[in-house]
Amino acid sequence: MKNNEFVKEITNIDENFAKWYTDIVLKADLADYTDTKGCIAIKPYGYAIWENIKDYTDKKFKKTGVKNTYFPLLIPESLLQKEKDHVEGFAPEVAWVTEAGGEKLEEKLCIRPTSETIISTMYSKWLSSWRDLPYLYNQWCNVLRWEKETRPFLRSREFLWQEGHTIHETAKEAEERTLQMLEVYADVVENLLAIPVIKGIKTEKEKFAGADATYTIETMMYDGKALQSGTSHYFGQNFTKPFNIKFQNREGKEEYAYQTSWGISTRLIGAIIMAHGDSRGLKLPPKVAPTQVVVVPVAMHKEGVKEKATELYNNLAENFRAEIDVRDQYSPGYKFNDWEMRGVPIRIEIGPRDIENGVCVLVRRDTAEKIVVNLEEVNTKIAEMLEDIHNNMYKVCKERMEQKTTIAYTLDEFIQNMNTNQGFIKSMWCGDVECENKIKELTAAKSRCMPFEQEKISDTCVCCGKKAEKMVVWGRQY
Amino acid sequence: MKNNEFVKEITNIDENFAKWYTDIVLKADLADYTDTKGCIAIKPYGYAIWENIKDYTDKKFKKTGVKNTYFPLLIPESLLQKEKDHVEGFAPEVAWVTEAGGEKLEEKLCIRPTSETIISTMYSKWLSSWRDLPYLYNQWCNVLRWEKETRPFLRSREFLWQEGHTIHETAKEAEERTLQMLEVYADVVENLLAIPVIKGIKTEKEKFAGADATYTIETMMYDGKALQSGTSHYFGQNFTKPFNIKFQNREGKEEYAYQTSWGISTRLIGAIIMAHGDSRGLKLPPKVAPTQVVVVPVAMHKEGVKEKATELYNNLAENFRAEIDVRDQYSPGYKFNDWEMRGVPIRIEIGPRDIENGVCVLVRRDTAEKIVVNLEEVNTKIAEMLEDIHNNMYKVCKERMEQKTTIAYTLDEFIQNMNTNQGFIKSMWCGDVECENKIKELTAAKSRCMPFEQEKISDTCVCCGKKAEKMVVWGRQY
Repeated sequence: MKNNEFVKEITNIDENFAKWYTDIVLKADLADYTDTKGCIAIKPYGYAIWENIKDYTDKKFKKTGVKNTYFPLLIPESLLQKEKDHVEGFAPEVAWVTEAGGEKLEEKLCIRPTSETIISTMYSKWLSSWRDLPYLYNQWCNVLRWEKETRPFLRSREFLWQEGHTIHETAKEAEERTLQMLEVYADVVENLLAIPVIKGIKTEKEKFAGADATYTIETMMYDGKALQSGTSHYFGQNFTKPFNIKFQNREGKEEYAYQTSWGISTRLIGAIIMAHGDSRGLKLPPKVAPTQVVVVPVAMHKEGVKEKATELYNNLAENFRAEIDVRDQYSPGYKFNDWEMRGVPIRIEIGPRDIENGVCVLVRRDTAEKIVVNLEEVNTKIAEMLEDIHNNMYKVCKERMEQKTTIAYTLDEFIQNMNTNQGFIKSMWCGDVECENKIKELTAAKSRCMPFEQEKISDTCVCCGKKAEKMVVWGRQY
Repeated sequence: MKNNEFVKEITNIDENFAKWYTDIVLKADLADYTDTKGCIAIKPYGYAIWENIKDYTDKKFKKTGVKNTYFPLLIPESLLQKEKDHVEGFAPEVAWVTEAGGEKLEEKLCIRPTSETIISTMYSKWLSSWRDLPYLYNQWCNVLRWEKETRPFLRSREFLWQEGHTIHETAKEAEERTLQMLEVYADVVENLLAIPVIKGIKTEKEKFAGADATYTIETMMYDGKALQSGTSHYFGQNFTKPFNIKFQNREGKEEYAYQTSWGISTRLIGAIIMAHGDSRGLKLPPKVAPTQVVVVPVAMHKEGVKEKATELYNNLAENFRAEIDVRDQYSPGYKFNDWEMRGVPIRIEIGPRDIENGVCVLVRRDTAEKIVVNLEEVNTKIAEMLEDIHNNMYKVCKERMEQKTTIAYTLDEFIQNMNTNQGFIKSMWCGDVECENKIKELTAAKSRCMPFEQEKISDTCVCCGKKAEKMVVWGRQY
């Protein structure tokens, strides 16, 4: 009967959000720390969430013509160095293989922090004519970035992701692809994970190392901090020139291709935890929940209860990701807490009196609301309820984002807003990196993006007071 | 119009099988060499085959209760060394990360050649009671083994695979799981890839480093050589003791768990190429072919041809993995060769006269047989034909395996058989590793396995003449 009061062991969400987060990761069996510092083991319950994200996203990719591939994990040092900004951005945080097969290597190999360089080398080898274009390739793989401070899912040295890499005949086509993939990500995060996003373009300072433009979807967590949830980069010819990715164009002339890359990662599991979780634990969006509905028999020792509950479970399992909890070492109360903590969207309680009345009790994880349902209607009711839970979870996040988004006209206002209501701040920005640096120094907030949906707040930069035409959304970040 | 006569560029399969193999890998667009020596890039056409294998296998796994997980890529040196046989087997061929994040590491980390050690460490941490058992976990991931000689798919330094790792309450349950997973692999290779297998147990010499028993499925390639296509290992307590994987058993006493592991890899793509390919190129089993049927319009410039072909394609695409080839820079003849070389099971030719008659022509890749089919019947006919192609491809491999399997009673016979009809040799073996070594030295053949289906060939070892009770299947190997 160990851990029978385990919910009490979760740190209070409003007291110490960081500790609450770690508690959830460990106690909900999503992942665990390993002997490889900064790297986690993703447990079945956590990995099943990733599989659901992956399946959904991969289908969306394929509908837009994307095909999957696989490129080497190890990148020779000389390749990494071909694009100046890129190497400056990534070299400090890579891990190097220097010995292999019992020998010291002549050229050291880095473990990919991202694969632009190795993929560009292959594209250069393969591409010949405009007829071959576009290449719309993606890979689902692991990457490694030697972060100083790590947190499970949010900032793990090794993480799982997908990286799409496309090349195109024209700049226009590549730019359109960049935005198309950002829309796919927005769809994944809003319609699968039930988290509203802000779409926009990164400032020069915040863009990807080597990109002409980085587009982003930004989400807000429970504590008002931002999580960058997916990015899509337009490279122009920044890589195709140093990597010599040329093709014969329709006029028979040689031309460098136009390139994009885009990615989402297991960090999204961190977003789910931090956007939806509450004092009772994890709260999973129904569409990615590994278990959407769990049947908990009450008074399981009484005749016929286990049988009827199992019959109900078998019926549900045909339509939903269902579980039944028949562990005899735990009380129903323990199980209720356990499944709540693990974030299962709907719990079904069924005991002797329910069975007598031909009903069962549905309990929503998001609102704790209970309803009594006829056993004949249970499939329909659950389908409706899952839909409703998704919509409500989205709405709760949306309302929080609205409440925690303020406008600042001056630096003083900016500082006060951020200190009293940590969240997003909308303000005008002159375009100067010095103002970004100053704001970061004073408030620890960074520019999240220049949203596609611009608002004309004022004419002057919130920081320096000079003429400003762009509205930026700012926030502290994970 | 480059490469218009490219089929001629494929090396003759009977002249130089190794070169033929490489030609197919490159020309059928399955994979390519990279700047990372010994590592390949898997192109979309090759990767799609892997995805089909993965999807099918993963579903089979899950039906037996297996769940997916993800463990770190990097393993600290101290962990790798905990199991004596294991480290001896793998340490010589691992790659070491010695620098990361701009610093030299205190303890070097190896890139996983397989994950028994890191996974066992976590199991030790997680396991507490018999109620927690079994753990039936698997991961789909990349691994790295620093091979001296590499070949695309067959022996690549980095390769993709799945590795299942289970722990159990009893030895019996673990042994049953080991055999259960071998049956899953046999099903994948026979029913998906259309390649017959021999199931058996490896000799002491050939078993996995650290295992009590290694079970294998062995397949025969076009040239009579063997390819080990999947293995399943029973570890007993070999890892659970050094890694301290203990649980409280039903009697309340501490006990070490019983363990298994099992894997298949992208090597299976090599098996497909070498078991089925012929002088015209790749020949893909219908169930894993990324394209099962391709529509090639003939006289595409004539009115209505492209439209009718597209209509046919759209109709087919609802039921099959279909393509249409409307490239206008190539002749139909070129396209026929191209799709044959790429191994597509069925090609459909449709030209003006066919359209007039309401028919199209189906051409089988495996037999080159052509049949004229009414357009109304085309879906049914293709479904039947794909089934028939699968069965025929399996039959062709099976017959070859029978023709190239001989019996040897003496060492002289053994040598002669292997030199005149390279293939499998069945013979009795005394159990002494010295005989295995001698046979390898004289014939380059190794014991493939002691098949489950034993035959009593004689009473004496083919090598030393001593008493022998086990029949071994021998063969040269990839």
